Amino acid sequence: MFQENLKRLVADTEGGIAGLLMGFDGIAVDSYTGPQDDVDKIDITTVGMEFSFILTQVRKAAEILEVGGPVEVAIRAEKLTILIRVVNTDYFIALAIRPEGNFGKGRYLLRVVAPKLHAELVA
Amino acid sequence: MFQENLKRLVADTEGGIAGLLMGFDGIAVDSYTGPQDDVDKIDITTVGMEFSFILTQVRKAAEILEVGGPVEVAIRAEKLTILIRVVNTDYFIALAIRPEGNFGKGRYLLRVVAPKLHAELVA
Repeated sequence: MFQENLKRLVADTEGGIAGLLMGFDGIAVDSYTGPQDDVDKIDITTVGMEFSFILTQVRKAAEILEVGGPVEVAIRAEKLTILIRVVNTDYFIALAIRPEGNFGKGRYLLRVVAPKLHAELVA
Repeated sequence: MFQENLKRLVADTEGGIAGLLMGFDGIAVDSYTGPQDDVDKIDITTVGMEFSFILTQVRKAAEILEVGGPVEVAIRAEKLTILIRVVNTDYFIALAIRPEGNFGKGRYLLRVVAPKLHAELVA
């Protein structure tokens, strides 16, 4: 049921590698990985697990600083960009893109897809 | 010596609130805060300290995932956006902007200012 939105997210973002819907506890609900070459293969669930912990720390920091809940987190490393969008208090979506991929398009599509996945989660 | 670049960063980003040069250990080197109204006053050093910890976690996660070092981190909370750019292995710059501020311009200016601050740090 989540596959269609995750697939669209990855396929429509230039340089998109994989998309993931995950709980803040690091447990994946669903994921989609596009075709990859073997050289730089990434496992989106492992990536998401590492970042679910960081996202929890970001939430705590935001609470301490009284700046409201986190909405969006983007992390650009040398070989991979991770875009994260909070869906609700329990879930987030992550999109992994290549460094040369379309950062802005990814952000835009996450914003579009988030309420759709939220609707599917509560349906 | 760092003031000029930090000030330009904040002043030239629409919605820019404050800029900070900080060590990964959470100790500020220098900061600049533009004029603020009292309602949503933020202390950029406190913000930076919270995020220096998160940045260290991001670095560890990137190492585990073998995706290279983190270059850029952006965190959008309901009431504040924090853009971070890694200057070198010891230091980063952070820019706090209002939610409606110019995210793209802030990112661009951080990219421009980072090598300048790096040059000043090693001078």
